[in-house]
Amino acid sequence: MTKAGSRSSEMNRIYLDHNATTAPSSVVREHIGEWLESWGNPSSIHWSGRGPKALLRDARRSLGALLNCDPLEIIFTSGGSESNNLAIKGIHQALALGRMRQIGGLRNRYILSSVEHPSVMKPMLQLKSLGADVQFVPVDRDGKIDLDVYQSLLSPQTAMVSVMFANNETGHIFPIQKMAEMAHQVGALFHCDGVQALGKVAVNLKEWGVDLATFSGHKFYALKGVGLLYARRGLNLESLIAGGGQERGRRAGTENLLAIASIGAMAGLGAEILEKSRRMEELRNELESLISSRISGVHLTGAQYPRIANTSSMVIDGVDGETLLMNLDMRGFSVSTGAACSAGSSEPSPVLLAMGLSRREAQSSLRVSLGWETTREEIHLFVDALDQVVARLRSFRHGEEAMLGI
Amino acid sequence: MTKAGSRSSEMNRIYLDHNATTAPSSVVREHIGEWLESWGNPSSIHWSGRGPKALLRDARRSLGALLNCDPLEIIFTSGGSESNNLAIKGIHQALALGRMRQIGGLRNRYILSSVEHPSVMKPMLQLKSLGADVQFVPVDRDGKIDLDVYQSLLSPQTAMVSVMFANNETGHIFPIQKMAEMAHQVGALFHCDGVQALGKVAVNLKEWGVDLATFSGHKFYALKGVGLLYARRGLNLESLIAGGGQERGRRAGTENLLAIASIGAMAGLGAEILEKSRRMEELRNELESLISSRISGVHLTGAQYPRIANTSSMVIDGVDGETLLMNLDMRGFSVSTGAACSAGSSEPSPVLLAMGLSRREAQSSLRVSLGWETTREEIHLFVDALDQVVARLRSFRHGEEAMLGI
Repeated sequence: MTKAGSRSSEMNRIYLDHNATTAPSSVVREHIGEWLESWGNPSSIHWSGRGPKALLRDARRSLGALLNCDPLEIIFTSGGSESNNLAIKGIHQALALGRMRQIGGLRNRYILSSVEHPSVMKPMLQLKSLGADVQFVPVDRDGKIDLDVYQSLLSPQTAMVSVMFANNETGHIFPIQKMAEMAHQVGALFHCDGVQALGKVAVNLKEWGVDLATFSGHKFYALKGVGLLYARRGLNLESLIAGGGQERGRRAGTENLLAIASIGAMAGLGAEILEKSRRMEELRNELESLISSRISGVHLTGAQYPRIANTSSMVIDGVDGETLLMNLDMRGFSVSTGAACSAGSSEPSPVLLAMGLSRREAQSSLRVSLGWETTREEIHLFVDALDQVVARLRSFRHGEEAMLGI
Repeated sequence: MTKAGSRSSEMNRIYLDHNATTAPSSVVREHIGEWLESWGNPSSIHWSGRGPKALLRDARRSLGALLNCDPLEIIFTSGGSESNNLAIKGIHQALALGRMRQIGGLRNRYILSSVEHPSVMKPMLQLKSLGADVQFVPVDRDGKIDLDVYQSLLSPQTAMVSVMFANNETGHIFPIQKMAEMAHQVGALFHCDGVQALGKVAVNLKEWGVDLATFSGHKFYALKGVGLLYARRGLNLESLIAGGGQERGRRAGTENLLAIASIGAMAGLGAEILEKSRRMEELRNELESLISSRISGVHLTGAQYPRIANTSSMVIDGVDGETLLMNLDMRGFSVSTGAACSAGSSEPSPVLLAMGLSRREAQSSLRVSLGWETTREEIHLFVDALDQVVARLRSFRHGEEAMLGI
């Protein structure tokens, strides 16, 4: 533990940044020692390979049941970022090599929303630098995607569309099912980054009707180092990590059994997820009405559209988000201003800017994301702290402005 | 645990397949609970990110010290296969995009040995399908690489050479330092798959003089799900997994902290490795002289050239390797016929075939790979069992041949 860690441990710690990562559940902590016993290489055909092979098979089955897909349609990866890269580059390369009979024709257009995660955005930009025609579908101020622009971009030249199930910063849920149907009408493939869906909604891949979908373990109370890509049966995507025959030749490398077992165990909780989600939604709504009634000048982002249950995104007038975050941190509260993967940069959230918020608004934004274990008491403590910190920061600011004669 | 697992647990289990994977060391098992406490996202700037960030930094430093490189030259990945793919495709793509000033010119040739791991072989074949000129350097029957052919393949058109430090099946050590110098004379980059080096030799990257090198955690008594790519400072390789800014923008995705901490902890054992290696070598040599004195018709592969300390590869006349392996497994001994990642296929080892062994010889091969904890008693028990099983299989075979009148 670092010094900072031990100092902070003396006070209350309340974690409200579950879209960044989640603590491994007690189920995972309880079983980790047992899973460690299966340390063999699942490819080995002697005794040491049998335990890991069984764990791998069981996890794949549980996830197939949770997601409503064939277990063999699941490719285990190292996480959401790898899954997104595999989906995008794997399809692009298979097309380049003429190995994608399914969609045929000369297809070079890739479509994504303007608020995708960097692990979708960046690979798409890599394709662009290799000559692909990459097009963005804009969203409005509340995060709603422009389906007219989307329709106009779709054509028989479209290779693939990639749109997330729900945005990691605002929680906004996209009309995936409809957008997949529209893509299929022109013969294009549809990939969905579903990282923010697991643990918050009942995922049903057959209903989603997508060809590819990404999920991550560590956003779902499992260990870090595991994700998966659902790839509809028969899709010959080219390997991103090529080598040994693991994952039926689609993803090489000795499997991270410990993490795979952990996401498998979480998948086993399938039936409890909706109940947990309902609880989070109640608390999130309570959080928002508490804030609205007690703190002036707070504007919820995208609250009028369908959102995942645990996420609240807001702009707080006259407060710098980064300063707010640090002040809340000193009191033991973890929240964020945007995605964790771009934290530490002083740039405002690209997602909020893409939604049309001004730089100033984006810089005054706050994301609160609840977890399965978040309690009503924590929500009340958080709103108390937020109220005090916002008031203090605003009074400093007024003081400064008065001194400067603004 | 599976039924097969519990049945086997009633007997002695002796693991002699350490080149396939290793059991996490007691250091790792002891600390895993503590590392799990740092479950936050290291990119988060609030309290939950600080513990993981410190673990990440400490692991990077320990590995820099172990490998003799700058900690910032280390890119954490999900394992050896990803590292090999990142090295090869990352350089190829950077060249394609004109982002590899370091070596300049129009370079489209890639050179590798004919006995590389599939995670080097397959990405190279992917480059070939994209138009690269991929050339193989042959090795002789004892695994020695042909430096004359290598020299003749090197030219100012060579982009990159990839040769392993030591072969995973035979243990043969390649003259990396010399081969890297030769590559550099024509301005090419040199990548070394060093997966079989860690834990067996003192790795000194400055002495190796390579530009890129791959290592893996689970072959080094750490957890599965972590590897690293050493990339010499200033090498602008293109990301394989693009997205967030982790690993200085070279490898996106939330870090697998548990596994990274485990390889960091193993790196801390640096000074003990040579001693452990000396012990393994003594036992390996004892194993080989015991086998030679007790079992006829056994031919050691590549034993006259430098080998890593723990590996013994042999051809056993008149015995099918797969049958031998299964019979030894029934007695609790884990060995292999070739690389674990191609286990289960009935094809003989491509490495042994590339060395010029006949199919029959390759199918009669056995690999024994010792570990840090292997004991003299285990070696003796293994040779007893091997002696008995070989005699039994040979007598069956003679019986069959007599019946068939061969």
